[in-house]
Amino acid sequence: MGVPPLLPRRAVIVAVGSELLTPFRTDTNSLFITSKLNDLGIEVVAKVIVGDRRDELAAVIGESLRRSDLLVLTGGLGPTDDDVTRLAVSDALGLPLDEDPEIVERIRRRFARRGMEMPAVNRVQAQVLRGAAVLPNANGTAPGQWLERGARSVVLLPGPPREMRPMFEAVLAEWLQPLARGARLHRRVIKIAGRTESDVEQVTQPVYSRFATWQPPVATSILAVPGQIELHFSVRAESGEDARSILARATSEILAVAGDDVFSTDGRSLEQVVGDLLRRRGWRIATAESCTGGLVASRLTDVPGSSDYVERGVVAYSNRAKTDLLGVPEALMLEHGAVSEPVGEAMAAGMRERAGVDVAVGVTGIAGPGGGSESKPVGTVAVAVAWASGSVVRRYLFPGGREQVKWFASQTALNMVRQVLQER
Amino acid sequence: MGVPPLLPRRAVIVAVGSELLTPFRTDTNSLFITSKLNDLGIEVVAKVIVGDRRDELAAVIGESLRRSDLLVLTGGLGPTDDDVTRLAVSDALGLPLDEDPEIVERIRRRFARRGMEMPAVNRVQAQVLRGAAVLPNANGTAPGQWLERGARSVVLLPGPPREMRPMFEAVLAEWLQPLARGARLHRRVIKIAGRTESDVEQVTQPVYSRFATWQPPVATSILAVPGQIELHFSVRAESGEDARSILARATSEILAVAGDDVFSTDGRSLEQVVGDLLRRRGWRIATAESCTGGLVASRLTDVPGSSDYVERGVVAYSNRAKTDLLGVPEALMLEHGAVSEPVGEAMAAGMRERAGVDVAVGVTGIAGPGGGSESKPVGTVAVAVAWASGSVVRRYLFPGGREQVKWFASQTALNMVRQVLQER
Repeated sequence: MGVPPLLPRRAVIVAVGSELLTPFRTDTNSLFITSKLNDLGIEVVAKVIVGDRRDELAAVIGESLRRSDLLVLTGGLGPTDDDVTRLAVSDALGLPLDEDPEIVERIRRRFARRGMEMPAVNRVQAQVLRGAAVLPNANGTAPGQWLERGARSVVLLPGPPREMRPMFEAVLAEWLQPLARGARLHRRVIKIAGRTESDVEQVTQPVYSRFATWQPPVATSILAVPGQIELHFSVRAESGEDARSILARATSEILAVAGDDVFSTDGRSLEQVVGDLLRRRGWRIATAESCTGGLVASRLTDVPGSSDYVERGVVAYSNRAKTDLLGVPEALMLEHGAVSEPVGEAMAAGMRERAGVDVAVGVTGIAGPGGGSESKPVGTVAVAVAWASGSVVRRYLFPGGREQVKWFASQTALNMVRQVLQER
Repeated sequence: MGVPPLLPRRAVIVAVGSELLTPFRTDTNSLFITSKLNDLGIEVVAKVIVGDRRDELAAVIGESLRRSDLLVLTGGLGPTDDDVTRLAVSDALGLPLDEDPEIVERIRRRFARRGMEMPAVNRVQAQVLRGAAVLPNANGTAPGQWLERGARSVVLLPGPPREMRPMFEAVLAEWLQPLARGARLHRRVIKIAGRTESDVEQVTQPVYSRFATWQPPVATSILAVPGQIELHFSVRAESGEDARSILARATSEILAVAGDDVFSTDGRSLEQVVGDLLRRRGWRIATAESCTGGLVASRLTDVPGSSDYVERGVVAYSNRAKTDLLGVPEALMLEHGAVSEPVGEAMAAGMRERAGVDVAVGVTGIAGPGGGSESKPVGTVAVAVAWASGSVVRRYLFPGGREQVKWFASQTALNMVRQVLQER
């Protein structure tokens, strides 16, 4: 088993799969791999996406190795005819493939544990490039492979992220990290809700543009995802302590101008931040949703351990459900409409009372594409939070299609709960 | 101005920009370009992402032209030192760049309209590859270029989507569409739930492997996403009718072997299929969720118009909520545990009765990472469906982390509802 004695400097990532060349899919594995390689100071110089064609892939492998000293391939390790990565690497490097009986046995046992016999097709997954180290797959049948060719390394990883990630983490821990003496890239992400990208840019750019002149310089990039703006800082430093202190200084300068809209400076998601605040206060929460259809509850319960503070939720899609489950008076809906601030408030208050919880959130709106009117166009959403001694309600108009309106509304609901928890 | 007399067959898309090689950004321009090219029957055989390095990019251009007859480049046409696309194409093809005084004038006027003088750096944007046609940019300063070299074409487009898209639409309308007499690519997707990829492969491969020998041949690729296996067919045909009939034949041959596990043959998602079945019967549905935390309701309500058939949903996370909201007897939970088939069944039945709907689904399980035991490990989930004249309940053990267990459970719940609706 060969391990390169020097840390690679320049990597190319190749994602294999014809489905990644359709208009419907995009390669996201490379983002994870890039992040991990950058941490070690390894630059990604190119990313390539190719289909399930052995000749094309073999050509790409040859070319990529001419411009890099680390080639990371993802995908194409499955058991089917479409899975050509093993064969293409074999072609490109002129290396034979040998069947590894231990892998055959491992795959056989994996199927046996589920009471199944190994399908004959899976046998090709045991083909190993001569001289390669086998990378066990804890979450699937396809093992990975790691191969050294002179000063160059080739890593074959499976395509499904839950199989690829732990396998690549193992490659990092066992081979790459020990070689990465010296400067590493350190990162910090600041997350902001409730503002537009140009607004955040205008407020923070005069501040973060100065970070680039610090010693060592802090690089900043700004990234907008729906309902959330992120500032990504990175700094290259030998000592973790130096890096942490300079990143802390950058963070506090941004906090000074962006203030309360910053909800996270340590990578936590909005639902994690809300969960941690609930846990710290010992509060329990319940949700009363109409247009978000359960998305707020689902996001809250994505967090491990959330059963400690999520008591219940209700999706009151029909008016009758709003009355039955939340005690919203029919007269209120007739007077103001089901999408209105009073009804949002009544949903939150009714939920809080019936569930006997400390805080409840209510969301009612028009996600579209139908149901809009001149006075309440698609995207109109009322969000309310009720707690023992008070309540708050706000009306919004969110842009975009149905799923985007649902997402914005859930983001806003969680952010309002956060603000209530932080202020009180 | 050279225009290739024949429609290109095989395209490579190259996205230029070092920011696309960070962990935070992904190239999305290529999805738009792929979709437009596919419509004309032009296959995308590779996508490449490279940084702002002239020598790297020139090498990639040379290699890409060896495997395609159409090369589409996006990005790197700005005025700064980082914008190397023009220079790299010039290097790769051995073509000089000439300044086009008309473009200089156009850029100058663009700045003048905003009361500004043209910065000196912008002058490089008027450099045109000898023999190329200039593509005007309605939304920015960087013009595009279109170049014919023998049987091969190279298109240079700007990176910002709002500049790239209209420019590429013009290329399509003026050059490619008129050439696209004849064959186009036609697609069909078959979606299957409740089976593993290798299981589907074993059953369908002997069937679809024959499709490749048909006239015209149907290409098949198999794609696994969590809880769902997809077969993607594509066929190149001149007549839409021929394509439809051959794809229908392929579909029915797969249906004959995969049967009831196929839930969609027309691109619809599982939640859309369930919604359409509910609407056709005039049934209303309610959801009673524990471990999925609202995900089933949220997916059902992702479908436009779902308020017609989604009555309500309940997220009964605590035992008290299961009793309060669904009437699950405490004794039942004590006897069997909250995660058990009897409790799942009681949740579905209680929901159906209380909401007065035609069908209800109940989900209770252990999403993890905590809460598992030897007899009920993390991933144990009971799913039940209740309707007026019967009910069904099944217990599953799903693999993976919390979010994956939630996803598998929601997929299984929707699929069980589909089966109930289709069978009765």
